[in-house]
Amino acid sequence: MDTALHLDLPDFLARANARDLVLPRAEDRMRFVLELARENVAADGGPFAAAVFERDSGRLLAAGANRVVASGYSCAHAEMLALTLAQRQAGHYDLGRPPHPACELVSSAEPCLMCLGAVLWSGVRGLVCGARGEDVCAVGFDEGPKPADWPDELRRRGIGVTPDVLRDEARALLRDYQAAGLPVYNARLGA
Amino acid sequence: MDTALHLDLPDFLARANARDLVLPRAEDRMRFVLELARENVAADGGPFAAAVFERDSGRLLAAGANRVVASGYSCAHAEMLALTLAQRQAGHYDLGRPPHPACELVSSAEPCLMCLGAVLWSGVRGLVCGARGEDVCAVGFDEGPKPADWPDELRRRGIGVTPDVLRDEARALLRDYQAAGLPVYNARLGA
Repeated sequence: MDTALHLDLPDFLARANARDLVLPRAEDRMRFVLELARENVAADGGPFAAAVFERDSGRLLAAGANRVVASGYSCAHAEMLALTLAQRQAGHYDLGRPPHPACELVSSAEPCLMCLGAVLWSGVRGLVCGARGEDVCAVGFDEGPKPADWPDELRRRGIGVTPDVLRDEARALLRDYQAAGLPVYNARLGA
Repeated sequence: MDTALHLDLPDFLARANARDLVLPRAEDRMRFVLELARENVAADGGPFAAAVFERDSGRLLAAGANRVVASGYSCAHAEMLALTLAQRQAGHYDLGRPPHPACELVSSAEPCLMCLGAVLWSGVRGLVCGARGEDVCAVGFDEGPKPADWPDELRRRGIGVTPDVLRDEARALLRDYQAAGLPVYNARLGA
Protein backbone atom coordinates (compact mmCIF):
# COMPACT_ATOMS: atom_id res chain seq x y z
CA MET A 1 0.00 0.00 0.00
CA ASP A 2 1.46 3.36 -1.02
CA THR A 3 1.52 5.80 1.83
CA ALA A 4 3.22 8.78 0.20
CA LEU A 5 3.52 10.80 -2.97
CA HIS A 6 7.03 11.30 -4.33
CA LEU A 7 8.49 13.59 -6.93
CA ASP A 8 12.14 13.11 -7.81
CA LEU A 9 14.21 16.20 -8.53
CA PRO A 10 16.75 16.11 -11.34
CA ASP A 11 20.36 16.57 -10.22
CA PHE A 12 20.71 20.15 -11.40
CA LEU A 13 17.62 21.15 -9.40
CA ALA A 14 18.67 19.30 -6.25
CA ARG A 15 22.03 21.09 -6.52
CA ALA A 16 20.34 24.48 -7.03
CA ASN A 17 18.23 23.89 -3.92
CA ALA A 18 21.34 23.07 -1.89
CA ARG A 19 23.05 26.35 -2.79
CA ASP A 20 23.66 29.13 -0.31
CA LEU A 21 22.86 32.00 -2.64
CA VAL A 22 22.05 35.68 -2.07
CA LEU A 23 20.97 37.81 -5.04
CA PRO A 24 19.92 41.31 -4.04
CA ARG A 25 18.95 42.49 -7.57
CA ALA A 26 15.76 41.45 -9.39
CA GLU A 27 17.60 40.96 -12.69
CA ASP A 28 20.14 38.64 -11.09
CA ARG A 29 17.35 36.57 -9.55
CA MET A 30 15.67 36.29 -12.94
CA ARG A 31 18.96 35.42 -14.66
CA PHE A 32 19.42 32.58 -12.17
CA VAL A 33 15.88 31.35 -12.91
CA LEU A 34 16.32 31.54 -16.69
CA GLU A 35 19.54 29.54 -16.43
CA LEU A 36 17.61 26.88 -14.48
CA ALA A 37 14.96 26.81 -17.22
CA ARG A 38 17.68 26.16 -19.82
CA GLU A 39 19.17 23.41 -17.68
CA ASN A 40 15.71 21.96 -17.27
CA VAL A 41 15.16 21.71 -21.02
CA ALA A 42 18.49 19.88 -21.26
CA ALA A 43 17.18 17.51 -18.54
CA ASP A 44 13.97 16.59 -20.42
CA GLY A 45 11.86 19.26 -18.72
CA GLY A 46 9.70 22.09 -19.96
CA PRO A 47 11.07 25.61 -20.64
CA PHE A 48 9.97 27.00 -17.30
CA ALA A 49 11.67 27.58 -13.95
CA ALA A 50 10.90 29.55 -10.80
CA ALA A 51 12.47 30.28 -7.44
CA VAL A 52 11.45 31.67 -4.08
CA PHE A 53 13.70 34.33 -2.54
CA GLU A 54 13.49 36.31 0.64
CA ARG A 55 12.24 39.55 -0.87
CA ASP A 56 14.49 42.02 0.94
CA SER A 57 17.72 40.11 1.47
CA GLY A 58 17.63 38.13 -1.77
CA ARG A 59 18.44 34.85 -0.06
CA LEU A 60 17.36 31.85 -2.12
CA LEU A 61 14.84 29.59 -0.37
CA ALA A 62 14.05 27.09 -3.10
CA ALA A 63 14.02 26.57 -6.85
CA GLY A 64 11.71 24.59 -9.13
CA ALA A 65 11.32 23.73 -12.79
CA ASN A 66 8.63 22.19 -14.95
CA ARG A 67 8.83 18.39 -14.54
CA VAL A 68 5.43 17.40 -15.97
CA VAL A 69 6.66 14.98 -18.61
CA ALA A 70 9.46 13.51 -16.51
CA SER A 71 7.39 13.05 -13.35
CA GLY A 72 4.12 12.06 -15.01
CA TYR A 73 2.29 14.67 -12.91
CA SER A 74 0.48 17.48 -14.72
CA CYS A 75 0.68 19.72 -11.66
CA ALA A 76 4.50 19.59 -11.61
CA HIS A 77 4.86 23.14 -12.90
CA ALA A 78 7.91 25.18 -11.98
CA GLU A 79 6.04 27.47 -9.61
CA MET A 80 4.39 24.57 -7.76
CA LEU A 81 7.75 22.91 -7.11
CA ALA A 82 9.44 26.15 -6.06
CA LEU A 83 6.63 27.08 -3.64
CA THR A 84 6.37 23.58 -2.18
CA LEU A 85 10.13 23.23 -1.72
CA ALA A 86 10.21 26.68 -0.10
CA GLN A 87 7.45 25.66 2.29
CA ARG A 88 9.37 22.52 3.20
CA GLN A 89 12.37 24.74 3.88
CA ALA A 90 10.27 27.15 5.97
CA GLY A 91 8.51 24.29 7.76
CA HIS A 92 5.08 25.83 7.17
CA TYR A 93 2.41 26.13 4.47
CA ASP A 94 2.31 29.92 4.88
CA LEU A 95 5.48 31.65 3.68
CA GLY A 96 4.02 34.96 4.87
CA ARG A 97 3.72 33.91 8.50
CA PRO A 98 5.61 36.21 10.87
CA PRO A 99 8.43 36.18 11.81
CA HIS A 100 9.40 34.54 8.51
CA PRO A 101 10.87 37.20 6.19
CA ALA A 102 8.60 38.25 3.31
CA CYS A 103 9.19 36.11 0.23
CA GLU A 104 8.72 36.55 -3.48
CA LEU A 105 8.33 34.08 -6.32
CA VAL A 106 10.47 34.78 -9.38
CA SER A 107 9.13 32.94 -12.42
CA SER A 108 10.56 32.69 -15.92
CA ALA A 109 7.03 33.31 -17.22
CA GLU A 110 3.65 34.54 -16.05
CA PRO A 111 1.95 31.76 -14.07
CA CYS A 112 -0.86 29.74 -15.65
CA LEU A 113 -4.28 29.62 -13.98
CA MET A 114 -3.25 26.81 -11.63
CA CYS A 115 -0.01 28.46 -10.55
CA LEU A 116 -1.74 31.81 -10.13
CA GLY A 117 -3.97 30.12 -7.56
CA ALA A 118 -0.94 28.47 -5.96
CA VAL A 119 0.72 31.90 -5.60
CA LEU A 120 -2.39 33.19 -3.81
CA TRP A 121 -2.36 30.43 -1.21
CA SER A 122 1.41 30.25 -0.69
CA GLY A 123 1.92 33.30 1.48
CA VAL A 124 4.48 34.96 -0.86
CA ARG A 125 4.29 38.74 -0.87
CA GLY A 126 5.58 39.30 -4.40
CA LEU A 127 5.54 37.79 -7.88
CA VAL A 128 8.22 38.66 -10.44
CA CYS A 129 7.69 37.50 -14.03
CA GLY A 130 9.95 37.25 -17.09
CA ALA A 131 7.90 36.35 -20.18
CA ARG A 132 4.27 37.43 -20.45
CA GLY A 133 1.32 35.08 -20.77
CA GLU A 134 1.01 36.10 -24.42
CA ASP A 135 4.62 35.00 -25.00
CA VAL A 136 3.82 31.60 -23.48
CA CYS A 137 0.69 31.20 -25.62
CA ALA A 138 2.60 32.30 -28.74
CA VAL A 139 4.66 29.09 -28.59
CA GLY A 140 1.55 26.93 -28.13
CA PHE A 141 0.98 26.51 -24.39
CA ASP A 142 -2.43 27.25 -22.85
CA GLU A 143 -2.39 29.56 -19.82
CA GLY A 144 -6.02 28.86 -18.92
CA PRO A 145 -8.82 31.38 -18.37
CA LYS A 146 -7.00 33.87 -16.17
CA PRO A 147 -8.97 36.98 -15.28
CA ALA A 148 -7.72 39.97 -17.27
CA ASP A 149 -7.11 41.91 -14.05
CA TRP A 150 -5.20 39.12 -12.28
CA PRO A 151 -2.38 41.45 -11.13
CA ASP A 152 -5.00 43.57 -9.33
CA GLU A 153 -6.48 40.44 -7.76
CA LEU A 154 -3.03 39.59 -6.40
CA ARG A 155 -2.41 43.12 -5.17
CA ARG A 156 -5.79 43.11 -3.39
CA ARG A 157 -4.45 40.13 -1.45
CA GLY A 158 -1.19 41.86 -0.56
CA ILE A 159 0.97 40.34 -3.32
CA GLY A 160 2.96 42.80 -5.43
CA VAL A 161 3.46 42.01 -9.12
CA THR A 162 6.54 42.96 -11.17
CA PRO A 163 6.21 42.05 -14.86
CA ASP A 164 8.71 42.00 -17.75
CA VAL A 165 11.96 41.43 -15.88
CA LEU A 166 14.41 40.29 -18.60
CA ARG A 167 11.39 39.63 -20.78
CA ASP A 168 13.41 39.44 -24.00
CA GLU A 169 15.71 36.75 -22.62
CA ALA A 170 12.72 34.89 -21.16
CA ARG A 171 10.89 34.99 -24.48
CA ALA A 172 13.99 33.88 -26.39
CA LEU A 173 14.10 30.78 -24.22
CA LEU A 174 10.51 29.90 -25.14
CA ARG A 175 11.17 30.48 -28.82
CA ASP A 176 14.28 28.33 -28.75
CA TYR A 177 12.21 25.55 -27.17
CA GLN A 178 9.58 25.86 -29.88
CA ALA A 179 12.21 25.99 -32.65
CA ALA A 180 13.73 22.76 -31.32
CA GLY A 181 10.37 21.03 -31.85
CA LEU A 182 10.12 19.95 -28.22
CA PRO A 183 6.79 18.80 -26.74
CA VAL A 184 4.02 21.31 -25.96
CA TYR A 185 1.80 19.07 -23.82
CA ASN A 186 -1.73 19.46 -22.59
CA ALA A 187 -2.66 22.11 -25.12
CA ARG A 188 -6.27 20.90 -25.18
CA LEU A 189 -7.90 24.11 -26.29
CA GLY A 190 -10.66 23.03 -28.62
CA ALA A 191 -9.51 19.38 -28.50
CA MET B 1 21.02 17.04 -0.35
CA ASP B 2 17.30 16.47 -0.81
CA THR B 3 16.52 14.89 -4.13
CA ALA B 4 12.76 14.41 -3.86
CA LEU B 5 9.54 15.93 -2.61
CA HIS B 6 7.39 13.75 -0.36
CA LEU B 7 3.86 14.02 0.88
CA ASP B 8 2.71 11.44 3.41
CA LEU B 9 -0.84 10.17 3.15
CA PRO B 10 -2.84 9.58 6.33
CA ASP B 11 -3.85 5.97 6.91
CA PHE B 12 -7.49 6.40 5.92
CA LEU B 13 -6.44 7.88 2.58
CA ALA B 14 -3.81 5.24 1.86
CA ARG B 15 -6.48 2.63 2.58
CA ALA B 16 -9.01 4.38 0.31
CA ASN B 17 -6.45 4.40 -2.50
CA ALA B 18 -5.83 0.69 -2.07
CA ARG B 19 -9.52 -0.17 -2.46
CA ASP B 20 -10.91 -2.01 -5.46
CA LEU B 21 -14.10 -0.01 -5.77
CA VAL B 22 -16.66 0.41 -8.56
CA LEU B 23 -19.44 2.99 -8.13
CA PRO B 24 -21.58 3.39 -11.25
CA ARG B 25 -23.85 6.16 -9.85
CA ALA B 26 -22.82 9.80 -9.43
CA GLU B 27 -24.47 10.08 -6.02
CA ASP B 28 -22.60 7.03 -4.72
CA ARG B 29 -19.30 8.47 -5.92
CA MET B 30 -20.07 11.73 -4.14
CA ARG B 31 -21.17 9.93 -0.96
CA PHE B 32 -17.81 8.11 -0.94
CA VAL B 33 -16.00 11.45 -1.34
CA LEU B 34 -18.00 13.16 1.40
CA GLU B 35 -17.22 10.31 3.77
CA LEU B 36 -13.52 10.81 3.00
CA ALA B 37 -13.86 14.51 3.77
CA ARG B 38 -15.36 13.66 7.17
CA GLU B 39 -12.56 11.18 7.85
CA ASN B 40 -10.08 13.85 6.81
CA VAL B 41 -11.37 16.36 9.33
CA ALA B 42 -11.00 13.67 12.01
CA ALA B 43 -7.39 13.23 10.80
CA ASP B 44 -6.44 16.92 11.18
CA GLY B 45 -7.24 17.80 7.57
CA GLY B 46 -9.49 20.34 5.89
CA PRO B 47 -13.17 19.64 5.08
CA PHE B 48 -12.49 18.72 1.46
CA ALA B 49 -12.00 15.47 -0.44
CA ALA B 50 -11.97 14.42 -4.08
CA ALA B 51 -11.57 11.27 -6.13
CA VAL B 52 -10.89 10.29 -9.73
CA PHE B 53 -13.12 7.64 -11.26
CA GLU B 54 -13.28 6.07 -14.68
CA ARG B 55 -16.27 8.01 -15.96
CA ASP B 56 -18.20 5.18 -17.57
CA SER B 57 -17.39 2.15 -15.43
CA GLY B 58 -17.19 3.97 -12.11
CA ARG B 59 -13.92 2.29 -11.14
CA LEU B 60 -12.01 4.29 -8.53
CA LEU B 61 -8.55 5.38 -9.65
CA ALA B 62 -7.44 7.51 -6.72
CA ALA B 63 -8.68 9.59 -3.81
CA GLY B 64 -7.32 12.72 -2.17
CA ALA B 65 -8.14 15.06 0.69
CA ASN B 66 -6.99 18.47 1.86
CA ARG B 67 -3.70 18.01 3.74
CA VAL B 68 -2.44 21.62 3.76
CA VAL B 69 -1.98 22.01 7.50
CA ALA B 70 -0.70 18.48 8.10
CA SER B 71 1.77 18.46 5.19
CA GLY B 72 2.87 22.08 5.42
CA TYR B 73 2.22 22.52 1.70
CA SER B 74 -0.38 25.07 0.61
CA CYS B 75 -0.93 23.26 -2.69
CA ALA B 76 -2.01 20.04 -0.94
CA HIS B 77 -5.67 20.52 -1.80
CA ALA B 78 -7.92 17.47 -2.20
CA GLU B 79 -8.17 17.79 -5.98
CA MET B 80 -4.39 18.10 -6.42
CA LEU B 81 -3.76 14.92 -4.45
CA ALA B 82 -6.52 12.97 -6.21
CA LEU B 83 -5.33 14.00 -9.68
CA THR B 84 -1.67 13.36 -8.90
CA LEU B 85 -2.35 9.95 -7.34
CA ALA B 86 -4.53 9.06 -10.34
CA GLN B 87 -1.73 10.02 -12.71
CA ARG B 88 0.70 7.88 -10.78
CA GLN B 89 -1.79 5.04 -11.10
CA ALA B 90 -2.20 5.67 -14.84
CA GLY B 91 1.55 6.11 -15.33
CA HIS B 92 1.08 9.32 -17.29
CA TYR B 93 0.45 13.04 -16.77
CA ASP B 94 -2.49 12.97 -19.18
CA LEU B 95 -5.47 11.02 -17.85
CA GLY B 96 -7.24 11.62 -21.17
CA ARG B 97 -4.64 9.87 -23.28
CA PRO B 98 -6.10 7.03 -25.36
CA PRO B 99 -6.52 4.17 -24.74
CA HIS B 100 -6.95 5.14 -21.09
CA PRO B 101 -10.67 5.23 -20.24
CA ALA B 102 -12.14 8.72 -19.82
CA CYS B 103 -11.93 9.89 -16.21
CA GLU B 104 -13.82 12.34 -14.06
CA LEU B 105 -12.92 14.17 -10.88
CA VAL B 106 -15.56 14.09 -8.15
CA SER B 107 -14.98 16.84 -5.61
CA SER B 108 -16.80 17.57 -2.37
CA ALA B 109 -16.79 21.24 -3.39
CA GLU B 110 -16.22 23.44 -6.42
CA PRO B 111 -12.47 23.72 -7.04
CA CYS B 112 -10.62 26.90 -6.10
CA LEU B 113 -8.70 28.84 -8.73
CA MET B 114 -5.60 26.65 -8.38
CA CYS B 115 -7.51 23.37 -8.59
CA LEU B 116 -9.57 24.64 -11.51
CA GLY B 117 -6.32 25.05 -13.40
CA ALA B 118 -5.16 21.63 -12.24
CA VAL B 119 -8.38 20.10 -13.63
CA LEU B 120 -7.68 21.72 -17.00
CA TRP B 121 -4.19 20.22 -17.30
CA SER B 122 -5.00 16.79 -15.86
CA GLY B 123 -6.74 15.22 -18.82
CA VAL B 124 -9.97 14.40 -16.95
CA ARG B 125 -13.08 14.63 -19.08
CA GLY B 126 -15.54 15.50 -16.35
CA LEU B 127 -15.84 17.42 -13.09
CA VAL B 128 -18.58 16.62 -10.56
CA CYS B 129 -19.05 19.02 -7.64
CA GLY B 130 -20.93 18.81 -4.32
CA ALA B 131 -20.94 22.20 -2.60
CA ARG B 132 -20.83 25.40 -4.63
CA GLY B 133 -18.08 28.01 -4.47
CA GLU B 134 -20.47 30.29 -2.59
CA ASP B 135 -20.95 27.57 0.05
CA VAL B 136 -17.18 27.36 0.50
CA CYS B 137 -16.83 31.14 0.81
CA ALA B 138 -19.74 31.27 3.25
CA VAL B 139 -17.65 29.43 5.85
CA GLY B 140 -14.67 31.74 5.30
CA PHE B 141 -12.44 30.13 2.66
CA ASP B 142 -11.29 32.13 -0.38
CA GLU B 143 -11.88 30.48 -3.77
CA GLY B 144 -9.74 32.99 -5.65
CA PRO B 145 -10.70 35.08 -8.69
CA LYS B 146 -12.36 32.38 -10.79
CA PRO B 147 -13.92 33.60 -14.02
CA ALA B 148 -17.72 33.70 -13.68
CA ASP B 149 -18.08 31.46 -16.75
CA TRP B 150 -15.56 28.84 -15.59
CA PRO B 151 -17.89 25.90 -16.41
CA ASP B 152 -18.00 27.13 -20.01
CA GLU B 153 -14.21 27.43 -20.07
CA LEU B 154 -13.97 23.80 -19.00
CA ARG B 155 -16.57 22.66 -21.53
CA ARG B 156 -14.69 24.50 -24.29
CA ARG B 157 -11.75 22.27 -23.41
CA GLY B 158 -13.81 19.09 -23.51
CA ILE B 159 -14.47 18.79 -19.77
CA GLY B 160 -18.12 18.31 -18.73
CA VAL B 161 -19.27 19.92 -15.48
CA THR B 162 -21.96 18.48 -13.17
CA PRO B 163 -22.78 20.77 -10.23
CA ASP B 164 -24.82 20.30 -7.05
CA VAL B 165 -24.52 16.53 -6.56
CA LEU B 166 -25.57 15.97 -2.92
CA ARG B 167 -25.05 19.69 -2.40
CA ASP B 168 -26.99 19.77 0.88
CA GLU B 169 -24.84 17.04 2.42
CA ALA B 170 -21.68 18.70 1.09
CA ARG B 171 -22.69 22.04 2.52
CA ALA B 172 -23.60 20.51 5.88
CA LEU B 173 -20.07 19.16 6.12
CA LEU B 174 -18.61 22.65 5.61
CA ARG B 175 -20.97 24.14 8.17
CA ASP B 176 -20.10 21.46 10.72
CA TYR B 177 -16.43 22.29 10.19
CA GLN B 178 -17.07 25.97 10.75
CA ALA B 179 -19.26 25.29 13.80
CA ALA B 180 -16.44 23.23 15.33
CA GLY B 181 -14.17 26.31 15.12
CA LEU B 182 -11.55 24.48 13.07
CA PRO B 183 -8.86 26.44 11.14
CA VAL B 184 -9.75 28.35 7.97
CA TYR B 185 -6.21 28.99 6.70
CA ASN B 186 -4.85 31.31 4.05
CA ALA B 187 -7.94 33.50 3.90
CA ARG B 188 -5.85 36.54 2.99
CA LEU B 189 -8.50 38.58 1.28
CA GLY B 190 -7.77 42.14 2.25
CA ALA B 191 -5.01 41.09 4.64
